[in-house]
Amino acid sequence: MLIHNISQLLTLNGGPQRGKDLGRLGIIEQGAVLMRGDTIVAVGPQDELITKYPDEQRMDANGKVMLPGFVDPHTHLVWAGDRAVEFEMRLEGRTYLEILAAGGGIISTVKATRQCEYDDLYAQTRARARTMLRYGTTTAEAKTGYGLELKSELDQLKILLDLDDEGPLEIIPTFLPAHAIAPEYQTDPDGYTRLICEKMLPAAYEWWLKHETGRPLPFVDVFCETGAFSLEQSRCILTRARDLGFPLKIHADEFDNLGGAQLAAELGAASADHLVKTSSEDIAALAASDTVAVALPCTPFGLAETHYTPAKEILDAGGLLALATDCNPGTAWCENMQFVIALACRVLKLTPAQAIAAATINSAAAIQRDDRIGSIEPGKQADMILLTVNDYRHLGYRFGENLVNMVIKKGRMIPIV
Amino acid sequence: MLIHNISQLLTLNGGPQRGKDLGRLGIIEQGAVLMRGDTIVAVGPQDELITKYPDEQRMDANGKVMLPGFVDPHTHLVWAGDRAVEFEMRLEGRTYLEILAAGGGIISTVKATRQCEYDDLYAQTRARARTMLRYGTTTAEAKTGYGLELKSELDQLKILLDLDDEGPLEIIPTFLPAHAIAPEYQTDPDGYTRLICEKMLPAAYEWWLKHETGRPLPFVDVFCETGAFSLEQSRCILTRARDLGFPLKIHADEFDNLGGAQLAAELGAASADHLVKTSSEDIAALAASDTVAVALPCTPFGLAETHYTPAKEILDAGGLLALATDCNPGTAWCENMQFVIALACRVLKLTPAQAIAAATINSAAAIQRDDRIGSIEPGKQADMILLTVNDYRHLGYRFGENLVNMVIKKGRMIPIV
Repeated sequence: MLIHNISQLLTLNGGPQRGKDLGRLGIIEQGAVLMRGDTIVAVGPQDELITKYPDEQRMDANGKVMLPGFVDPHTHLVWAGDRAVEFEMRLEGRTYLEILAAGGGIISTVKATRQCEYDDLYAQTRARARTMLRYGTTTAEAKTGYGLELKSELDQLKILLDLDDEGPLEIIPTFLPAHAIAPEYQTDPDGYTRLICEKMLPAAYEWWLKHETGRPLPFVDVFCETGAFSLEQSRCILTRARDLGFPLKIHADEFDNLGGAQLAAELGAASADHLVKTSSEDIAALAASDTVAVALPCTPFGLAETHYTPAKEILDAGGLLALATDCNPGTAWCENMQFVIALACRVLKLTPAQAIAAATINSAAAIQRDDRIGSIEPGKQADMILLTVNDYRHLGYRFGENLVNMVIKKGRMIPIV
Repeated sequence: MLIHNISQLLTLNGGPQRGKDLGRLGIIEQGAVLMRGDTIVAVGPQDELITKYPDEQRMDANGKVMLPGFVDPHTHLVWAGDRAVEFEMRLEGRTYLEILAAGGGIISTVKATRQCEYDDLYAQTRARARTMLRYGTTTAEAKTGYGLELKSELDQLKILLDLDDEGPLEIIPTFLPAHAIAPEYQTDPDGYTRLICEKMLPAAYEWWLKHETGRPLPFVDVFCETGAFSLEQSRCILTRARDLGFPLKIHADEFDNLGGAQLAAELGAASADHLVKTSSEDIAALAASDTVAVALPCTPFGLAETHYTPAKEILDAGGLLALATDCNPGTAWCENMQFVIALACRVLKLTPAQAIAAATINSAAAIQRDDRIGSIEPGKQADMILLTVNDYRHLGYRFGENLVNMVIKKGRMIPIV
């Protein structure tokens, strides 16, 4: 299948884009892409490709923009219920304690998720996965973390693998029992940390070996934050995970700076995520490493806060910057990477080109899949989206409407509008 | 047709909601609506309605939320082209003058719109009208104002009437030759003001009488702002319009406070819109009048500014508050009232209930149509939307996804998802 008449073909070729290099879209005007099965075979100007492959079946892109499918490298996709009432209470000025007393907060989602039957939890998670796909995301990282006990955490991992098997959205799983202190250990966070290190991580490793289907090990992540896991507890968990062979991620500096960003760089984590209260030293440490800084602008937006990831400083320091939704029921129920791009242009001061690179090739790097997805290059998986517009800058410029016309996942075409 | 099994039927009954009264949703749980033709006949608990109307054809709402279709009372729907390149230049730090030199700014849209053939301009405008409908707007005010010369302004008025005739989106037109100083009068704003008062307004009045199809006169609006029309010029135009019988609107206090809000109250304008740099005296004057304060949060958001309409102060003073998209190519290309609600919860600190009332019954008041639309009450036009969720608070709580499942316009059902 040869897709031609692409006004702007954004290849994002050449690998992850560091520092001020961010924003190289690798545009081919009047471009074409040849794919066979689930793989991209050739990319170039359409005149060239039509001459070289005259007998291929063709699809006319009608002069629209094509780019790699969005890669969303930080989501909490699997949960039950919602926290809409809590959102309203917060706007009415109720305090955090009042919300907790009314049954709100993360533990309310943990309870709902633990109680939810597998099929129901699968259906609720699948609906969000379908929404992501409809808005142009072709691969999403997705975390467990609303179980906080072994069985429930492993059930959530299973849902993520089953959803990935079903497709079309590809899911890269992350094991996150360290999302919050489990309700049973509220007064003994060290006890819960020990449980994770001594029981849950080894059990997850065994479980993975038993259930696994040729996939690499999932990521292990920690919420390093006041009220969640201290720097020492985070180090404990991540070190144990690393020793077992898991690749690492970390939630750092969302509300307080505990040193999580430097820990991520030190341990060679794939990414450090949130990064709002991040210092110049942290930024320098990240920039000197291969750890990707993942900005989650929907979270401060969702909470109506005004401090965001210092994206420009990260780029000035030579860091690798990616974007994600942080899709979750407490602070940011948003599946839509187009909105993340529009928001990032405004609150992180990225150009549309920078935001697009941060949402494709760099976010693929944040989940260590940039060898296979995140760009339109020969040999890569055929994950592409076609927009309804003929200039890529409409991503960012416009907000509120879905600009994706067609999603192509592993070579399969899924019309949207 | 009897629509039943509505988990929350938001009637918004009882008329426009002033001051702290804003947010009365008039919820009927397990509700039902009976409509015949384009009119709502009965509203109430489903048990009651099913007993009373046992033989009506039924539609099951599957336990979802129903509310009045959104009324968007401030849009610049009719324009040609886009300003995506200008958006990128602004993010790259180029100055306003550099953008003007590169062909940007409002005058670039005026040029593109003047040059655009009727059919093409109709098609571009129609696409946005369709998007509005898809996101739940059933009635939108729409302004001319990218012509700034009589023929082009009247052509735009004609497009709005033709689009309204085509439907399903209902369009309430506004005549806005006073959107900017016409390029031919850059050095003579008083001259352009005289042209509007002496030629364009009387000509529009004559044109309307000739073309009109039983509709009330359109609104006349002025952009009262530094660089556009001074307070005296605005008074001149609005007074002349009022003397001809046109109902009035005004763009006031977007960037500077020239006194436009008090002028609106003094002249009995239907609404004063933007209201960012608005003083306590202005707010008191509005609150003492029937002029609706229309907040346009997408505009500061679109421009990445941090000052928004002082909505809480307007409510504290007893004012009438409404919400609109301000959909336009320069500062806020957004057709989606659901996003306006989500943004208003965060930046104007409204609750979901307040934002919904401001986007339905109060926005109907801002276009003087609250006798006919904006609520679900017997006798009103059957303009309703059905959500994909079973709690209205998901509007506001969630952002980035279309939560509208079906739009009913004048009794006609239009499935969306």
